[in-house]
Amino acid sequence: MNPQSPSPAVTIADIRKAADRIAPHAIRTPLLESPRLNDWLGFRLLVKCENLQHTGSFKLRGATNAVMSLPDSVTDVVAYSSGNHAQAVARAASRRGMNATIVMPEDAPALKIEGTKAYGAEVVTYDRYNESREEIGGAIAAERNAELIRPFEDVRVIAGQGTIGLEIASQCAELGATPDHVISCCGGGGLIAGTSLAVTSQIPGAKVWAAEPEGFDDTIRSLESGEILSVDPANRSICDAVVTPSPGEITFSINRNTLSGGFAVSDDLVLKVMATAFKHLKIVVEPGGAVAMAAALDGRLPAGTNCAVAVASGGNVDPEMFARALAAGPLF
Amino acid sequence: MNPQSPSPAVTIADIRKAADRIAPHAIRTPLLESPRLNDWLGFRLLVKCENLQHTGSFKLRGATNAVMSLPDSVTDVVAYSSGNHAQAVARAASRRGMNATIVMPEDAPALKIEGTKAYGAEVVTYDRYNESREEIGGAIAAERNAELIRPFEDVRVIAGQGTIGLEIASQCAELGATPDHVISCCGGGGLIAGTSLAVTSQIPGAKVWAAEPEGFDDTIRSLESGEILSVDPANRSICDAVVTPSPGEITFSINRNTLSGGFAVSDDLVLKVMATAFKHLKIVVEPGGAVAMAAALDGRLPAGTNCAVAVASGGNVDPEMFARALAAGPLF
Repeated sequence: MNPQSPSPAVTIADIRKAADRIAPHAIRTPLLESPRLNDWLGFRLLVKCENLQHTGSFKLRGATNAVMSLPDSVTDVVAYSSGNHAQAVARAASRRGMNATIVMPEDAPALKIEGTKAYGAEVVTYDRYNESREEIGGAIAAERNAELIRPFEDVRVIAGQGTIGLEIASQCAELGATPDHVISCCGGGGLIAGTSLAVTSQIPGAKVWAAEPEGFDDTIRSLESGEILSVDPANRSICDAVVTPSPGEITFSINRNTLSGGFAVSDDLVLKVMATAFKHLKIVVEPGGAVAMAAALDGRLPAGTNCAVAVASGGNVDPEMFARALAAGPLF
Repeated sequence: MNPQSPSPAVTIADIRKAADRIAPHAIRTPLLESPRLNDWLGFRLLVKCENLQHTGSFKLRGATNAVMSLPDSVTDVVAYSSGNHAQAVARAASRRGMNATIVMPEDAPALKIEGTKAYGAEVVTYDRYNESREEIGGAIAAERNAELIRPFEDVRVIAGQGTIGLEIASQCAELGATPDHVISCCGGGGLIAGTSLAVTSQIPGAKVWAAEPEGFDDTIRSLESGEILSVDPANRSICDAVVTPSPGEITFSINRNTLSGGFAVSDDLVLKVMATAFKHLKIVVEPGGAVAMAAALDGRLPAGTNCAVAVASGGNVDPEMFARALAAGPLF
């Protein structure tokens, strides 16, 4: 640990507790690989399939850990989310018999809005580019005396996402694989903060890297400069799950110590990687969920890599966007 | 066991041996479910994801068991296949350093022909409607002194496919689930013969059902009549993996004792089920691989079902066909 962070906000013990807490509600997602993909790459690539998690993304883990940690006196929860945390909080609240209100951008994928409602939540939409979801969510929480479950600036959420790192370590051991590198996508940084804490604790020597869409490389630039930087608000990407404007304070305090750096990938590459995952792994990955695989498949890892893990973080993609990926075609 | 079959061609001991033999080469595929799908159905549906198997289908199991059983003196293997057994034999032969020649219909999905070549096999194409693949394969086997690995009329292949049934039983036990019914697609009947032997042996009370495309319901009609019947050669279906003209003699001798019946499903339903699996399970299923899920989702199982397992047998589908499924849209 870097002396700048003598007392990390989240510990491996917190992640282990989260693993026990979410076990009845989440699945141990498979770690898949393709022999042809490995041959083409020249190293072994293991894909942690969080797209196959209940609700279609890793977000179920953090949301469930947070909701299941609440005292019985809490009856209402509120969240803001582009869609995956939304469905996850809705599902977790429903499992606990709580009411959920979710603030979502009006241009979120239709599938994500439909899913959030299907899990029993009330959905409030807002204008992603001109309104503040934090203000709207905070106002609703105050009005309804509800607990706000933030998407990444919450130690319970980070610990929940960290359970992915524990599973990566145990599944690699079962496969006899020792990954040199683990790549995860990075929006606000909750997934990679938890995952990197667990991976660096459990797999000695493994380096963890952030993958971000081009134009949303706030964590990569923040890591390089040593301070929290934001993206140009005019930037756009199809990777709706990971287009956060800047790293969180809690997540960055972890990631600055655990990450080795990052890679920014283009939307065009992401579409081709979605088609590659369709062809060679038979899985449905959404744009934001494909950025870590994209970095691996685009040769961004250091020379000499023998084995890497990429987190496929979600699969909630509308059919129109998936058809775009199929039309873009696979890398091979 | 029915007295008509006092000595089954394949035993549970053969299947257990196959499981040990293929363990280094195949994966234990996940048994997935979707909470939303379960709510919609009114019962718990567990999907055995053989589309996520190496080579993209269950066929790897039987082909690997057969190839790994051969004596070292064998240097060449031959197979005929619409594409999934083709890739499986090519992969298994390559793992053992043997040469493989595969006879495939000229109208097989491009993805399957490409995959078979990529695994190192020589591909010989033929006209599916006017030539006999058995004759062509037999002639090549004689000429090259090669071992012919039939797609289903081979006890080693049936035992290999049966390992799916062992995994279903152990994974259901891990989930605390006791399936009332298991549904598998049925072409020549090798998959369901092996699977039904294992399931009826390991899960007392579970019934096993065949799912076939409309117009290719040869096993269903053969079960009803008690003798092997064929389909009208003029029939067509998009379910290329399971459009065999009649049950095999070995497979039918097993299936007539282990199966409870079957369900025929339309191509239109299959496309919608592929879109449903895309939306709710985030997996890529090919048309033939979706027929078992189609029977379950179309309400064909007996009233009072609490839990069922459907085998998603493969995911090798060309992007054009998958785009057709996305356009057809999900069932909900």
